[in-house]
Amino acid sequence: MSESRFDTVLIDLSGVLYVGDTPIAGAVDALARLRASGRRLCFLTNTTRRTRAALVQKLNTLGLAIAAGEIMTAASAAHAYVLEDGLRPQLLIHPDLAPEFEDLDTHDPNAVVVGDAGAGFTYDALNAAFRVLMAADEPRLVAMGGNRYFADGDQLSLDMGPFVAALEVAADVRAVTTGKPAAAFFHAALRQLGGTAGSAVMIGDDLENDIGGAQRAGLSGVLVRTGKYRADDERHPEVKPEHIADDFAAAVDWILAGG
Amino acid sequence: MSESRFDTVLIDLSGVLYVGDTPIAGAVDALARLRASGRRLCFLTNTTRRTRAALVQKLNTLGLAIAAGEIMTAASAAHAYVLEDGLRPQLLIHPDLAPEFEDLDTHDPNAVVVGDAGAGFTYDALNAAFRVLMAADEPRLVAMGGNRYFADGDQLSLDMGPFVAALEVAADVRAVTTGKPAAAFFHAALRQLGGTAGSAVMIGDDLENDIGGAQRAGLSGVLVRTGKYRADDERHPEVKPEHIADDFAAAVDWILAGG
Repeated sequence: MSESRFDTVLIDLSGVLYVGDTPIAGAVDALARLRASGRRLCFLTNTTRRTRAALVQKLNTLGLAIAAGEIMTAASAAHAYVLEDGLRPQLLIHPDLAPEFEDLDTHDPNAVVVGDAGAGFTYDALNAAFRVLMAADEPRLVAMGGNRYFADGDQLSLDMGPFVAALEVAADVRAVTTGKPAAAFFHAALRQLGGTAGSAVMIGDDLENDIGGAQRAGLSGVLVRTGKYRADDERHPEVKPEHIADDFAAAVDWILAGG
Repeated sequence: MSESRFDTVLIDLSGVLYVGDTPIAGAVDALARLRASGRRLCFLTNTTRRTRAALVQKLNTLGLAIAAGEIMTAASAAHAYVLEDGLRPQLLIHPDLAPEFEDLDTHDPNAVVVGDAGAGFTYDALNAAFRVLMAADEPRLVAMGGNRYFADGDQLSLDMGPFVAALEVAADVRAVTTGKPAAAFFHAALRQLGGTAGSAVMIGDDLENDIGGAQRAGLSGVLVRTGKYRADDERHPEVKPEHIADDFAAAVDWILAGG
């Protein structure tokens, strides 16, 4: 531990610890080794199709012992943002995520919150959100993430980013992003852990949102060659990870060896 | 007539001559006066929720005697574009417009054509269009227009532009626009009329597509304070109409008085 640069490790979930319903080989053991080293850990996800409770249940089923309090989701960051600013949001979210937002006042909305609503992105729902933005004196568009698409079985499917872009164009507003790659999201995790950016590293499979976002927030980044990783990521003109590891276990080895 | 700068007048339909199912006060008489002046007239519309034949029928019901041959639609421009390039389009269009495209080969699509599909903008339809663009070697996205919204009764509703933007972001492509504000659309109208850009004026309620588009094509533009017009339009940083009129009748008076 004393030899390592990194006492704080932030970890993406989907594509790093599991893909679909399968844990990535070696991930369960590697997570146990990382915990045994005494480092501060936090799990950061932009997945917005289920509540944090449902996510924990899934992780436990996969053999990954992760507590709800260790996970920061783009959805809970959006929830906190809305509460802090006293907004009354029109929600464009997946029905499975609704329980996380049911405490909010959504009458006479003055803001729009967008997650990965999937089939919930209907014309009527988008039109209602657009009208809220056009009617507001100071339109507030809160996006959980800017992800363009995700691997959906053996096909690609639209994520929330394109629909956020549609509302930005329609109402001539700029969205505030609460999840990755927003620096505030990484900083909130560090604050919760009592860590500093200079001694923190993010492990992720999404070059732009995980690695680029972490680096812009002052952290280091380790890209894993699993999940949505593509060989092209290693030739990106701007985002250069501090390290590229074959998988999560190799990333943990690199960190434990000193980083 | 000899005193006027403008011998050619291009006119938007929805929001200028009518809103919803109601003619704008004075529009029927003003159109008759404009016709009586002997000027060349053409009606340019990005409305893509009905065929040209259905549009003429609606106009006649409203007391507006306009012939099919006087109307240029963004939909027919898209149809011509697809035919010329031999594309097989996935159609994201309103069901009422389908008859205008039923002659095209849409099997194994290699392009996407977007009109104002309204409620047809479902997640599944957009996802299918996205996948066509991602699978194509040279993805072709053909947009009938870039209109952000339209006046829908006493509310604003999303037009096709935001959905085109969503597909552009998702698949990282740039759309080709066939209707307003494309310069080619205005020039095709002038060619049909035998008019020149320097002596032509466009009357519209859409600052960006009608006025900005016309000006970039070398024409003048008169903005009317009806339809989707909003007070902010008069403070736009870039697009400055040659004239702003309270309504179509006032725009015609201005043109007949010399422009």
